[in-house]
Parts: sequence; structure tokens; C-alpha cells
Amino acid sequence: MKVSVVKIGGNLIEDDADLEQALDNFARIEGLKILVHGGGKLATQLAQKLDIETKMVDGRRVTDAQTLEIITMVYGGLVGKTIVSKLQAKQCNAISLSGADLDIIQSVKRPIKEHDFGFVGDIKKVNTEGFNTLLNAQITPVCCAITHDGNGQLLNTNADTIASEIAIALSQKYEVSLYYCFEKKGVLRSITDENSVIADIDRISYAQLIEEGIIADGMLPKLHNCFHALEHKVQHVYVGGIAMLANPNELKTTLHLNEFN
Amino acid sequence: MKVSVVKIGGNLIEDDADLEQALDNFARIEGLKILVHGGGKLATQLAQKLDIETKMVDGRRVTDAQTLEIITMVYGGLVGKTIVSKLQAKQCNAISLSGADLDIIQSVKRPIKEHDFGFVGDIKKVNTEGFNTLLNAQITPVCCAITHDGNGQLLNTNADTIASEIAIALSQKYEVSLYYCFEKKGVLRSITDENSVIADIDRISYAQLIEEGIIADGMLPKLHNCFHALEHKVQHVYVGGIAMLANPNELKTTLHLNEFN
Repeated sequence: MKVSVVKIGGNLIEDDADLEQALDNFARIEGLKILVHGGGKLATQLAQKLDIETKMVDGRRVTDAQTLEIITMVYGGLVGKTIVSKLQAKQCNAISLSGADLDIIQSVKRPIKEHDFGFVGDIKKVNTEGFNTLLNAQITPVCCAITHDGNGQLLNTNADTIASEIAIALSQKYEVSLYYCFEKKGVLRSITDENSVIADIDRISYAQLIEEGIIADGMLPKLHNCFHALEHKVQHVYVGGIAMLANPNELKTTLHLNEFN
Repeated sequence: MKVSVVKIGGNLIEDDADLEQALDNFARIEGLKILVHGGGKLATQLAQKLDIETKMVDGRRVTDAQTLEIITMVYGGLVGKTIVSKLQAKQCNAISLSGADLDIIQSVKRPIKEHDFGFVGDIKKVNTEGFNTLLNAQITPVCCAITHDGNGQLLNTNADTIASEIAIALSQKYEVSLYYCFEKKGVLRSITDENSVIADIDRISYAQLIEEGIIADGMLPKLHNCFHALEHKVQHVYVGGIAMLANPNELKTTLHLNEFN
């Protein structure tokens, strides 16, 4: 049986028209499916309105107690419930989940080594039985970027990683396709040319593209998640715009574990 | 089969120790169960921090678009996810739901007559099949005071009413006990005497207590919900403190449809 795991990125969530189109395309995917979302700049905006300072160490955001509350409100509440109500209107029977709901994703608070990143969780276990229960009942899980430690503590967790770990866990039973949707049409050869999409990337060209500096910054962890998924039996992994959900011939980047061409 | 539907009130949610104790008692209830919660003053506090004015007409709060966002963040996100993570730690496999999740509660935006109360929903339909799916899988639904209209609009709905409507809908299939938990030990004969709990109220004494002014203000709609539930085949209805969840002999108010004594 096939399952599509779709991650939609921050910029798509912030714009009402983009979100509506993304959910339209998602709702039309046939068969079993799971949506994973973050909350984009909405959490940062709320923190600013509440005069909560964003703390950074080593160039990365620290999730202190106040920031975790904001993330729980924005990702778990506002974004999750808004997405679900919109999907219901599109005849997609969705349910919004944090990792605590159904104990669906357990994580471990990141140990303090050089830095303390606060309430950040590294995924320990995906509850595949929980996903099976929902998918068997034709329910579409909508997962936000929050996990829990099993002892009553919610934890902030990267949405790209949540998507790949769900895809990997479900690959034991299902044929899984993983889609990373964002505001570009795929991995670009030239950042200034929207149409310079690299159609296929395998592990050899991946290494070359990193060396050439074409894959850099935020694309590095995203593509790391892609190859990690492929290495753990996820069948298909794609990076592109939301149009790829509606049209299989749409320009996008397809990731390949083995040498391509 | 038996189902317990438990509503916990605002004041219990605001205090960490009270919430912990309430969830401890709830987690220990044997058999199938459902929790319903509001968000108490947490939503009002967030609105104040964000300088959002509370609009009132005819002594009642108006849910404008900004207020609905706050309610969705606080009830649907912060309170719901916090409760679920705490219940998971107590080995209760919970899932937090708005009415949009699983299309579990549909409502109609209250028509504008004399006043426009904004994004407030009057319940139209409880999805008993959705509840059955979860309960059959030994999953405990945790419902917040938000419903949806089926067309993509979330709506603010009174938590007491949500609890009674869920109890009524499930009474078609289950033997349902409905517990309204709040900061008092039951309906009090004298507001200044915490132990003046009226142990039993039937419809005759209900009318008398209203006439005497003993049941007034916030207790009026709560007891209206109680009798409405009893009139629609809910088996047992109780009003009291969280201790009644742990101990069946605890002092509380039991509501009776027919003449008592």
C-alpha cells in the first residue's frame, strides 16, 4: 500500500492564498497521506509582539520555556487547527497532531554539550501503530513540529526531520513517497534563476554540488534528510513546489540513492 | 458499555498543581472516557498582553477574528497539547481535538439578530462514528471549546455545552456519565460555605432553587446543560470538585431527571 508524506514549508503557510493552493493540491492526492508543517515566521512574529527576545547560540535559535509556549500555541493551535478546518472543507478527513497526541512521536531533550538549545527534542521513536490506526480509518494525520519526551514535556523538533522520520518508520509496512514542498520549484543550480531546477540528484552529484557551493545553507540539512530517508527504504523523495503534488510531470528535483544516468 | 465524559473548568486549568491533580484523577477513571476543557483566563491574559480589546455586547463577550485566533492558540494549542503530554506521562493514550479534527463537532455560526457575537458556533452535529473509532482503539479524546462549520471556519463554542452534546450523542450507544468539575465541591446552598453542597437536585427542587436565588449567574446555564443532558438519555450527571472522579462517595451534587426523595 502507498503512503504520501508531504512537508509544507514556512513560506507557504504564511501566505493565505499559497496555503489554500497547497491544501487543495494535498487534498487531491489519492490514497493514504500525511501532512507535516512548521509555523514559519508566525511564531517569530508572535514572540516579537509579546516582547520575547529570540536567543541564539552558535547561530541557532534557543527554545526557552516562553518560546516553547509560543511554538505550542502557533504550530499546535493556530496553524494545525486552521489547516485541519480547511482540509475538512475539501472533504479530506484530517486530524492535527503533536508528537504527544497518540504518543505518535517521542523524542529526547537534546543533551547539553557545548551549548544548551533548550526544549529541543531529537526523535527517538515514531509510533507506527498509531499511524496505522488513523490511516486504516481513512484519517489524514497533520503533524506539527512538536514532539514529547513521554514524561509530560513537549519539545520543539525540526519539521523536515519529523517528515523524514515518519517516512522511514512507515516504510517498514508501506511504499512511501516523501515530498518536501517549498517556495522554489526544486533545488536550483542558480539561486537567481527560478527555472534552473536540477531535475535529478544522486549521491555522486550531491557531493559535487556541495563542493561547488550550489547546495549550501538551509538546503544542506534538507538534502541530508532526503538521503537519510532514501538510505532507510523510503521509495521516492522529491523537493519542489506545491504544483508537484497535483501533476507528476511538474518540474521538480528527484533524489536518487544510486548513481543516476 | 460505559463512557465517562468529564468537563474541567477554567480555574482548574490555570493552576499547575490543580491541573496535575485533575489529570491524575481523570487518568485513573476506568474504562472509556473523554475530557472536555476550556482555557479559562489564559486566553484573556494573552489578549491583554497583545493589547487586544475585549468587546462585549449585552454583557457577553464578542469573538472577533483576533479573539478567535487567540482562543485557537490557547485552547487548541497550549492547553490541549499540555494536557495530552501530561496524560501520556500518566499512561493515558490521549489525543487533543478541536471540532474540526476528524470533523468531530460541526456547528453553525450564530445568526445575527439583535447582536453580533462574532465567530461563535451553535452545535449542529456530533460525529459519533469519529468518537467510536477513537474509543474502540482505546484512545482518549481531549476536546477543546472550538468547533467548525464544515466550510473552513473555526468557531468558539461553550465548553459546558460541548460536554453535554457529546454526552447526549454517545448515549445512543453507550451508558454515559457526565461530570462537570469545577473549583467547588458541588452546587452550594450558601456561596460563603464551601461545605453547603446540595447533594441531590431534581427538576422540582431546581425550580425552587432558582426562585430562591440560590442557583443564579453562571450556575444557571451549567445546570441547564445538566438537565438537557438528562432529558436526552444521559444516564448520570454530576457537578463537583475533581475529587469526585477518584472517589464515588465524595460529596458532590447529583442531578435527577425525576422527582427525588
